[in-house]
Amino acid sequence: MTTENLVKEIRRKKSFLCIGLDPDLTKIPQHLLQEEDPVFSFNKEIIDATHHLCVAYKPNTAFYEANGIKGWKSLEKTIRYLNKKYPEIFTIADAKRGDIGNTSAMYAKAFFENLDFDAVTVAPYMGKDSVEPFLAIQNKHTILLALTSNEGAFDFQTKKINEKEMYKQVLETSKTWKNAKNLMYVVGATKAEYFKEIRKIIPNSFLLVPGIGAQGGNLSEVCNYGLTENIGLLINSSRGIIYASSGKDFAKFAGIKAKELQIEMEFILN
Amino acid sequence: MTTENLVKEIRRKKSFLCIGLDPDLTKIPQHLLQEEDPVFSFNKEIIDATHHLCVAYKPNTAFYEANGIKGWKSLEKTIRYLNKKYPEIFTIADAKRGDIGNTSAMYAKAFFENLDFDAVTVAPYMGKDSVEPFLAIQNKHTILLALTSNEGAFDFQTKKINEKEMYKQVLETSKTWKNAKNLMYVVGATKAEYFKEIRKIIPNSFLLVPGIGAQGGNLSEVCNYGLTENIGLLINSSRGIIYASSGKDFAKFAGIKAKELQIEMEFILN
Repeated sequence: MTTENLVKEIRRKKSFLCIGLDPDLTKIPQHLLQEEDPVFSFNKEIIDATHHLCVAYKPNTAFYEANGIKGWKSLEKTIRYLNKKYPEIFTIADAKRGDIGNTSAMYAKAFFENLDFDAVTVAPYMGKDSVEPFLAIQNKHTILLALTSNEGAFDFQTKKINEKEMYKQVLETSKTWKNAKNLMYVVGATKAEYFKEIRKIIPNSFLLVPGIGAQGGNLSEVCNYGLTENIGLLINSSRGIIYASSGKDFAKFAGIKAKELQIEMEFILN
Repeated sequence: MTTENLVKEIRRKKSFLCIGLDPDLTKIPQHLLQEEDPVFSFNKEIIDATHHLCVAYKPNTAFYEANGIKGWKSLEKTIRYLNKKYPEIFTIADAKRGDIGNTSAMYAKAFFENLDFDAVTVAPYMGKDSVEPFLAIQNKHTILLALTSNEGAFDFQTKKINEKEMYKQVLETSKTWKNAKNLMYVVGATKAEYFKEIRKIIPNSFLLVPGIGAQGGNLSEVCNYGLTENIGLLINSSRGIIYASSGKDFAKFAGIKAKELQIEMEFILN
């Protein structure tokens, strides 16, 4: 999907919500465990109940890999279902991959060709030649970790390299890479005060923002500094939506929680 | 496997060789493509021909994920085969994972429990709480990226944070994390001149060293600065061994290439 189409969808749905599909077998409603593929059944119901309220879904690969081959089947079924039934949805593989060039090319193949996601999250530690193989694929998006939502972000990301914090160095250096137009960035909602500085370096890029809800980030604060003329934000919520209820009504409650965020977003967009 | 047992195996086999199992369907001998699972058939023959010459195997997950579910089946078959037939072998999932705490715990489950690898490679960018869930598992090893073998290593890893290069900061900070005794580190063979400085910070830790062969690293230079009393090195070779021949004799030639490196290592150990 092109960025233009993503922006069009945001304006049409009055929502820049991304829903994280992180299904943990110990947390999903227990009646689903009798199904042949509990994880896919869970995702499918969540998607059907929320697709009109969000513009993106973000399965985190860890939650699928933890179930082995069965998990990869659930992931594949989920992305196939999304691409077939809701092709207007922007899909993100939250995989945080990154390796030497020939290996990153294999990851790009896995997520952009084989699974046909629109975007994949990538870690910047190994530098240019670990990211460019992802950037080489047209109309696919590489979402580079810049400033993450967790405590550990202060270990290295905010440390200064030549008077400039590491995450700023990542933003600036990555702008010089080939096909940098295909870059988006992860910036945690728990670091709202940093958005102003970040927008000075990347005024127009889309930011994928985790950390709203369970992790304590605040939506209006993030929008205050992060919104651009073309929106430029995808706000992610995972646990706050998908685990809103642990009963048979879980999808209905997920819809209610997503609707709450969508209304907040509609208000902000106006 | 405990580190003590790994060292014992190194002394017994007179080898600290790790073989990277990165099977690319376009590069493996083409007669294998008729097999039901060409990747597993390839790995099995390589393993049977080289297991007595090396102490570790390191499948890189990218090469399996690129083939989707079929790829994950090949990966699972490979690790099950290794654990059953050659339990004395140290197994490394070269996955370069890392995410917020609850998600890293899922990756730890995927690689340490479900697939039962001895070790997994992890990226340090997201800091302490992204690595500690891996470190929490007893007798399992977390191999943290420090200084990688690629060009992109110079983008961030060698940049100075408060007068100290990023990779040194990663080494020092990681030593303070809970269960740091379960840490090993990735240091590229292409950066041999850095090993002396690295050994000042982590005098005894095991280093996984990629970059010998195809990438241009030199074995004796690395050993000159990197070897410790308990060896402390796992030298990886992937393409140089597994693609030594593209004919039906590929396993035999992989054995010859592995033997060459083992002999060099035996000489160094003496």
